[in-house]
Amino acid sequence: MKHPTPIRPQEHAVYSADKMGKSTLFRSDRVMVGLNAFEPGQEHALHTHEGMDKVYQVIEGQGVFLLEGEAVPMQAGVVLVAPEGIPHGIRNTGTERLLVLAVLAPSP
Amino acid sequence: MKHPTPIRPQEHAVYSADKMGKSTLFRSDRVMVGLNAFEPGQEHALHTHEGMDKVYQVIEGQGVFLLEGEAVPMQAGVVLVAPEGIPHGIRNTGTERLLVLAVLAPSP
Repeated sequence: MKHPTPIRPQEHAVYSADKMGKSTLFRSDRVMVGLNAFEPGQEHALHTHEGMDKVYQVIEGQGVFLLEGEAVPMQAGVVLVAPEGIPHGIRNTGTERLLVLAVLAPSP
Repeated sequence: MKHPTPIRPQEHAVYSADKMGKSTLFRSDRVMVGLNAFEPGQEHALHTHEGMDKVYQVIEGQGVFLLEGEAVPMQAGVVLVAPEGIPHGIRNTGTERLLVLAVLAPSP
């Protein structure tokens, strides 16, 4: 993809019947901008990134952010920052697809 | 602000009658996550960041992305990546407030 260009994230979402789908919108050494796409019931289990900060922005749908010891409801529009070393994940608890913008800095 | 916690960007927007309003949601050496808030008619003029990539995500409202030699319409939901050294800016050409998530990596 050529940058800068306005991107409609929905047009780049990759859903998979097996597990969370991933797609990449931009990648440099400094940052990776991607999409995490969840069918109802799918999740990205609790995990951490060492030396990387992650920013989530919920594009559409609803579910929960998995944090250490809790599951926090979220829906389109909500942002969450998981600083390096902090466990985080996502589960689609809704009945519709859930699409989340995921920014990692620096790039993995 | 304590992280990670679900953030509703609208609750952290800072609008100013004088010029684009700015607020910061998270900052580390690796990344700065902020909000740019535009009253109708306000703009962030074309500018570049050396050694930093920028990611915009339009939270609400509509306007144009200012790019070199063009102004590209955008609205809520749209993402734009401006790699380092690439001129970019924003103008609120709508009649409502325009709120944009701005992520810079690494942090300025």
